[in-house]
Amino acid sequence: MVGAGQLARMTHQAGIALGQSLRILADSADDGAALVAGDVMVGDYRSLDVLREFAAGCDVVTWDHEHVPNDHIAALAADGVKVHPGAEALRFAQDKLQMRARLTELGIPCPRWAPIGSASDLAAFGSSVGWPLVLKAATGGYDGKGVWVVDSVEDAADVLNSGIALLGEEKAPIARELAADVARSPWGQGAAWPVVETVQENGICVEVIAPAPALPESLADEAQQLALRIASSLGVTGVLAVELFETTDGRLLVNELAMRPHNSAHWTIEGSRTSQFEQHLRAVLDYPLGTTGVTAPWVVMANLLGGPDDVRPKGIDERVHHCMAKFPDVKIHLYGKGFRPGRKVGHVTALGSDLDAVRARARAAADYLANGDAS
Amino acid sequence: MVGAGQLARMTHQAGIALGQSLRILADSADDGAALVAGDVMVGDYRSLDVLREFAAGCDVVTWDHEHVPNDHIAALAADGVKVHPGAEALRFAQDKLQMRARLTELGIPCPRWAPIGSASDLAAFGSSVGWPLVLKAATGGYDGKGVWVVDSVEDAADVLNSGIALLGEEKAPIARELAADVARSPWGQGAAWPVVETVQENGICVEVIAPAPALPESLADEAQQLALRIASSLGVTGVLAVELFETTDGRLLVNELAMRPHNSAHWTIEGSRTSQFEQHLRAVLDYPLGTTGVTAPWVVMANLLGGPDDVRPKGIDERVHHCMAKFPDVKIHLYGKGFRPGRKVGHVTALGSDLDAVRARARAAADYLANGDAS
Repeated sequence: MVGAGQLARMTHQAGIALGQSLRILADSADDGAALVAGDVMVGDYRSLDVLREFAAGCDVVTWDHEHVPNDHIAALAADGVKVHPGAEALRFAQDKLQMRARLTELGIPCPRWAPIGSASDLAAFGSSVGWPLVLKAATGGYDGKGVWVVDSVEDAADVLNSGIALLGEEKAPIARELAADVARSPWGQGAAWPVVETVQENGICVEVIAPAPALPESLADEAQQLALRIASSLGVTGVLAVELFETTDGRLLVNELAMRPHNSAHWTIEGSRTSQFEQHLRAVLDYPLGTTGVTAPWVVMANLLGGPDDVRPKGIDERVHHCMAKFPDVKIHLYGKGFRPGRKVGHVTALGSDLDAVRARARAAADYLANGDAS
Repeated sequence: MVGAGQLARMTHQAGIALGQSLRILADSADDGAALVAGDVMVGDYRSLDVLREFAAGCDVVTWDHEHVPNDHIAALAADGVKVHPGAEALRFAQDKLQMRARLTELGIPCPRWAPIGSASDLAAFGSSVGWPLVLKAATGGYDGKGVWVVDSVEDAADVLNSGIALLGEEKAPIARELAADVARSPWGQGAAWPVVETVQENGICVEVIAPAPALPESLADEAQQLALRIASSLGVTGVLAVELFETTDGRLLVNELAMRPHNSAHWTIEGSRTSQFEQHLRAVLDYPLGTTGVTAPWVVMANLLGGPDDVRPKGIDERVHHCMAKFPDVKIHLYGKGFRPGRKVGHVTALGSDLDAVRARARAAADYLANGDAS
């Protein structure tokens, strides 16, 4: 796996049961996955030479993030390396202009959108969909970065002048955000987990509720079918996360795609009979996929974001101690990363039959780990 | 963790979520845990110098097996190293004569037993408890090794002449074997999983059923209380497995003790909210223990023992493929060990609400992985 963040860390964890020894390409020896894996190479994923050296002897190469240059992925495949997902699929997760164009061709519901190359493009698009609207960097954005809500052409001047390839999207009337997470193997088998609600604050996912509360079955089915169709149509192998808007008038619109294990499915570690990390490995190794049934009526994952520096008690170890004492049922996942304000450093999962209680416990545990007694 | 077998491998896997990077002392770089851990030292656990070098910088030292010399463990503790469990507890798992003597002092029910130093000791013990009876090596036995059922003093001649320290035990009227697995932290918190039935073939555990079917609640309570009392009385820290006989007249007798994660609790990985591997780490790190509730009415673990060399299909990878296709709900755990006939190389876990169906699936999956189409 290229990349050594928490996704690689948790993928390695799942691989141990499958008898696999994940080889990791890390930026640094103290990356989260590099701390716990036995076969780690430190190197720059932007170098094709490094990627070639890394891939030698791997059965399959897969990705912890979308930042590996698409041409390099194609070059590895041309060398005969098995890469999953491949360059032809990944370009739709790497470039939102290509993604929107392809999904539109496929008839997949998206927010109204247009490529924006100039102020006049933006003026015309604004006239069509109304203001405010959303400008997005075609490449490189994540966790709210590379996204701007603008009220006018003037408001967008800095972004327009930045030289970044942009697309505009209508500001759809969003009731909430959902995610439909699926997996697909090279052989073509697909499997879907229940559709979840993702709760965002400041553009960052803070909580995931599985299944999405009060989601009509017709919409849940539609979301799963959309995700499986996208996986198949784009030739995705491995886990595909489809981030969706549920609009106030009951429609689904595709927001983003990720072709790797995804934050919206961390709940599957305890909440599903097959975790997304196991499933991703099964898929990219072209094993049959595991069952996606749930282990409890409600599963809630809350992200652990680094809190303020003056948190008390000071040490995370002491906060973990208190948290475990108070919540013996809550599962804590730490990513081996240093705490910095707002940084995703872990997550917690709670599950049970009373949604309000499960949700309160997950949020309280994550909040205490981040903010200690102050909260 | 000293030792790099499957117990260390699965403990490392659990430690990843807790933000821990398990350091492993391996006999060989291709031991199961050494293949997947980031911090591996290869060395001889029988050398105190090696143990001291290994322990430097560890927060806590714990054990994958009972074979580290007790004096070395005491010496590490005298150096100021935190060792859990410690030498004073471990001697009762390392020496069955000490174990039987101490449990008898505590009033814990055991098979009738006696130290056997000579043919006349054996003759006297046989007169007392009847023939056949069981001779056991006081130290070093496992998986049926170091255990002899003998019909007479003559029958025991080779064992008596071997120079091995021996004890004799009555051959109790066994209805079945059970295990009561608990954990205890240095602070003194205890937690018990449901009592399980362990099914043995040729002295090797082949299957574990959780909870033990049709076990009267009074006996289940008694077994858990026995295990917690033993843990407390012997000062055990970490997981304690108490192997029990349920006699045909409804009594419980303690068979063996293990002070580490144990085969009888592998089912907890999927079957309990807290796995024995997570719990062992929580205990030895003196974190509060996790909840031991179950995730399904019935959980069955079947050991995967290496089958014949001419198994078809030949490659384990192909058998895993077929097994996953047939049993998408069964969880496969491979230990990274080469297959040899009879060797424990992995296990599988199935769970659900119909015991017969769950049991059949677990056994069929393990059987196929071991024996392929021949079975």
